[in-house]
Amino acid sequence: MPLKIDVAIAKTNKYASRESGDTVEIVERPGGGISIILADGQGSGRAAKTLSLLVTAKVSALLKEGVRDGASARAANDFLFAMRNGQVSATLDILSVDLKTGTVVITRNSETACYIRTDDGREVSAGVERPLGIHPRTRPWAAEVPIGPRVRVILVSDGITNSGRRTGLPPLDLTTISANAGRQATAADIADLVLGEAIARDTKKPADDMSVVVLTLPEHQQTTLVRRMGAEVPLP
Amino acid sequence: MPLKIDVAIAKTNKYASRESGDTVEIVERPGGGISIILADGQGSGRAAKTLSLLVTAKVSALLKEGVRDGASARAANDFLFAMRNGQVSATLDILSVDLKTGTVVITRNSETACYIRTDDGREVSAGVERPLGIHPRTRPWAAEVPIGPRVRVILVSDGITNSGRRTGLPPLDLTTISANAGRQATAADIADLVLGEAIARDTKKPADDMSVVVLTLPEHQQTTLVRRMGAEVPLP
Repeated sequence: MPLKIDVAIAKTNKYASRESGDTVEIVERPGGGISIILADGQGSGRAAKTLSLLVTAKVSALLKEGVRDGASARAANDFLFAMRNGQVSATLDILSVDLKTGTVVITRNSETACYIRTDDGREVSAGVERPLGIHPRTRPWAAEVPIGPRVRVILVSDGITNSGRRTGLPPLDLTTISANAGRQATAADIADLVLGEAIARDTKKPADDMSVVVLTLPEHQQTTLVRRMGAEVPLP
Repeated sequence: MPLKIDVAIAKTNKYASRESGDTVEIVERPGGGISIILADGQGSGRAAKTLSLLVTAKVSALLKEGVRDGASARAANDFLFAMRNGQVSATLDILSVDLKTGTVVITRNSETACYIRTDDGREVSAGVERPLGIHPRTRPWAAEVPIGPRVRVILVSDGITNSGRRTGLPPLDLTTISANAGRQATAADIADLVLGEAIARDTKKPADDMSVVVLTLPEHQQTTLVRRMGAEVPLP
C-alpha cells in the first residue's frame, strides 16, 4: 500500500512571554517531498524570535533552490557567524522526506534529545552537534533512514527536553511517550502527547519556549490524492 | 473571547498528472500573524511547478523580511518579467492575518473567483487583476477587512472555478458552499467541501490542478496557547 507523509507541529511560548523564540517552517522540496525546519534562537522574546526567523528563512530559501540539507545547515552557520560576529547562537533541526532518494533525512545542529525509529523498528540514537553561529566551521550531525510505514521521528526544542527540571524531574523520555502512543497514533496525536507532557512537567507554566515536530508515514487508500495543510494560531 | 487564526489548504493534481502546477506556502509574519501564498504557474506539470515554486519562494522571502504584501506582489511580477522576458505568467494570491494592523489582507493577481465575508456579514466581491509576469508594471488588487469572529475567506485556483466546465455546468459558487457549510464549520471542513465539490463536478478526474485556501477566525477558550501546524501528503 502507498504511504502518506504525515507531519504535525505543536508549539507554545514560555509562560507569560508574548513571543516564542522557536520558529518552525514547512517547505516543499523542488525534487519532491517536504522539509520541516526548526530553529531555536538563543534567549527568549523578540530578539530570539528575530534570530530564529533569520535562520529558518535562510535555510528554507536554500532548500527551495534545491540545495542539499547538509550544505544548507553549513550555509546557515556561516551566514549567522558572519552577520553576528560569532556572538549569538541558534539551534537548527531539519527533517526531510526526500522522494528522490526515498529516505527520511535528519540534519541537526542541536543538543536536545530526539527520537528516530526506522522501518525495521530500530531506534537510532541521535548525535549531538554544537549550535550555529559560534564557530566558523560548524558541521551538522545527520542520519538517513529509508522510507517505510514504521518510520517515526520526533524532534523537540530544548524547552521540551528540560521541562520538569525546576522540580527535579528526570529528563523527558521520548521513547516511552512514543511507545505509549501506540501503533496507529497520527503525527498530531504524538505531537499533542509530547507537548502536553512537557507542559504538565512544568506545572502548566512552561519555563521556556516549547516546540515539537513529529513525522509518521502511515499507509493510505486514497484514490484521488489530496494534500492537506493547516495552521491554528490562538491569539491572546 | 479571544480569536484563533484557523487556516486550511487542500490540493489535488490534474488527473493522471504527477505534479501540481499550484504551490501553497504558509509563512510567519515578522510583525506577528501569518500569510498564505498561493501561486498557479501557467500550464501544468514540471514547468508549471517550477514556476509556481519560484513565485512563492520570492514572495515568502520578501514577506519574511517584513516587506508589505502589495510591494511583494509587485516585486514578484517584476522578477518574473525580468527572468522570463514576459513570456510566462503565474497567478498569485496572498492572504494575510496581520496582527499589527488587526486586519485580514487579501492581495491578488488572479482572475479566479474568491469569497470574502467581513465580520458584519457583508460579502466583498473580489476584483480581478491580470496575472504576474506578462506586463512590466502589473499591480495587485487588494482588500483589507478588520479581524473578527465572523470573517471567512476562501481562495481557489482556476482548476476549482472551472470544474464542471467540460460537462457544461455553471461556474462553481463559493457563496452557496460557504452558506451550506454552516456557522461552526472549521477551515478544514470548508476546504474539504470546496475541493470535494470541484472534484465531483469534474466526475472525479480533475481537468486541472486544484487548490483551495480557507481562513476562519473562531473564538477559543485555551488558557495555555498552543499553535499547531500540520501537513499530509499522500504518495502515489
